[in-house]
Amino acid sequence: MLTVKWTEKGGWEAPQLRPYGPLDLMPTASCIHYATQAFEGMKGYRGVDGKLRLFRPDLNSKRMTLSSTRIALPSFPPEELEELIKAFVAVDCAKWLPDPNTFIYIRPAIIASGAALGVQKPREATLFIIAVLFPPMDSPNGLRLLASKEDMGTRAWPGGHGWSKVGANYGPTLQAQGEARERGFDQILWLLGKEGRVTEAGASNFFIVWKHKYTGRLQLVTAPLGDKIILDGVTRRSVLELSRARLTHQPSEIRREVQHLEKVEVVEEDFTIHDLVEAHAEGRLVEAFACGTAFFVAPIAYIQYVDEGIDVPMTAATEDGGKAGPYASAIKTWLKEIMYGRVQHPWGVVVEERGAK
Amino acid sequence: MLTVKWTEKGGWEAPQLRPYGPLDLMPTASCIHYATQAFEGMKGYRGVDGKLRLFRPDLNSKRMTLSSTRIALPSFPPEELEELIKAFVAVDCAKWLPDPNTFIYIRPAIIASGAALGVQKPREATLFIIAVLFPPMDSPNGLRLLASKEDMGTRAWPGGHGWSKVGANYGPTLQAQGEARERGFDQILWLLGKEGRVTEAGASNFFIVWKHKYTGRLQLVTAPLGDKIILDGVTRRSVLELSRARLTHQPSEIRREVQHLEKVEVVEEDFTIHDLVEAHAEGRLVEAFACGTAFFVAPIAYIQYVDEGIDVPMTAATEDGGKAGPYASAIKTWLKEIMYGRVQHPWGVVVEERGAK
Repeated sequence: MLTVKWTEKGGWEAPQLRPYGPLDLMPTASCIHYATQAFEGMKGYRGVDGKLRLFRPDLNSKRMTLSSTRIALPSFPPEELEELIKAFVAVDCAKWLPDPNTFIYIRPAIIASGAALGVQKPREATLFIIAVLFPPMDSPNGLRLLASKEDMGTRAWPGGHGWSKVGANYGPTLQAQGEARERGFDQILWLLGKEGRVTEAGASNFFIVWKHKYTGRLQLVTAPLGDKIILDGVTRRSVLELSRARLTHQPSEIRREVQHLEKVEVVEEDFTIHDLVEAHAEGRLVEAFACGTAFFVAPIAYIQYVDEGIDVPMTAATEDGGKAGPYASAIKTWLKEIMYGRVQHPWGVVVEERGAK
Repeated sequence: MLTVKWTEKGGWEAPQLRPYGPLDLMPTASCIHYATQAFEGMKGYRGVDGKLRLFRPDLNSKRMTLSSTRIALPSFPPEELEELIKAFVAVDCAKWLPDPNTFIYIRPAIIASGAALGVQKPREATLFIIAVLFPPMDSPNGLRLLASKEDMGTRAWPGGHGWSKVGANYGPTLQAQGEARERGFDQILWLLGKEGRVTEAGASNFFIVWKHKYTGRLQLVTAPLGDKIILDGVTRRSVLELSRARLTHQPSEIRREVQHLEKVEVVEEDFTIHDLVEAHAEGRLVEAFACGTAFFVAPIAYIQYVDEGIDVPMTAATEDGGKAGPYASAIKTWLKEIMYGRVQHPWGVVVEERGAK
């Protein structure tokens, strides 16, 4: 693990690489009482060419600054954080990824580590980076979502902090998530307000493809970032950018593999669970998927809203042998190509290794 | 400090009393990433009769259960928690309070302490109790509050967890609090929504006394608990109960010391910052105060709302030589009488000491 200490007086100290072990936190540490904590999630990929890559680490590094200042923690310069993450991956992660097409999950975090029980802006903090190996969380049969009801809580709200990666967005959702699991669902589809605005799926961004009610045009839709409720996900952003570049022309001038797909409009707009129910009833719902770093691009097979069941079509075969919607399937392939170096792309940032493999 | 471990399989283990020192938390512990943490705040008082008392510890113990389950942590049986707190105070706190009229702050907390980075219901937890000495945080000249604007965030919202004592309610408020301090204010007065509902002051409940706009009747008002936005504060509840018992009759049949005060209606009802501005402009605002365990009953001297300044009257002298509104002053005296054993009252729960003084 890598740690960097900060004090209000002295600023950031020199980074220390040390063996993985307990954090030296006193029982009065602000981070375990007042949720003065923010984090990032990213992956290091071993490519088909044997190279180690990060996926758009600049975005994670910038978001970390936004999240930590939201929670009254100091800002770590994004460019330096990116360098620190690269150094950590080069020295510490490479050896855990001997084989191509594997990844390691990287967790930079910042916590108020000072021993001070007062409810006030922290005067000490620790940034740390750790890495964890876990298997791909593929869902070949698609996720089953339970739409949240009012008594299950609200993930985020205007004026809150849903847009940032602070701990306070996660703990309060686990009770509802536990209820969903017990009832046989994978995640909660978080709705907001009496109108039932669709926001996120579990801790992932949520996309649908539908035919628009009035125009009949095919649209790839996700909730907008405008009122700071939705996390500005790196995968979300990448899905939007790739889709705008590659799926809005017809016939595709640039991509042979999606010439069988109708072009879509890519829009960031609010929609409600009622819109979704209606689209399904009218046969206009083409597919739905969740996306984020941990779960990657996960097709949605089913959504339960009160007594209403939405069977979401999953008509395409994915390269890992599962099913998905055709758009999610194409997007998933494109992202993997970049992550694992099957294509060279500026988003796939090669990390020069320093440790022995 | 006192600790009790919990695992999903084995349940609660036996409590351990051990020397104050670092918690054994791994960098993957859920509580430092996902705000899986809840706490309580209470005080142990050394009375004028030399006895050690807790103030309504049953309420703290019950609320701890509600808070910890809100955050997907296990519930610790309230009666047992109360006994544990009493034992801790008897053995560990007594020696720190040699003199009458002193207090020690007690912090029971529960955190997801297991090393598991998954965003899921915790499988391990630790309950701990620590105590901290700090001087009374009296504000003889009254607090100056800055009413929150939309860009400063929202403390709590319908469907959220403002009613519970979870860490996620605190960290996200510190940025705004820091801004308030820099501008010369003590705390934020948290408003909710476009209508500017008045909710809490900093991490304390908020009360006003005013003459009602239409009836002209004197009212003691605080925001209601109905939609789970407001913390069900022990001091809040005690202020309401004492006021209902002792301030709603005129002339007071039971209390000689408040015969100079007009009777009040005690109401839990929403009001907005605009109502407050208007009441002030029309000379109907009698006083305002914040209350909570840490800050006790703190009179409010001034509230800034955008360009509007509200000078809140503070017309009574308090027994500690400061100023306050007359109702806050009477309530403060009554609560202190109970806490420090100047009167015997069921809310002042005597703890039998076991350690040497």
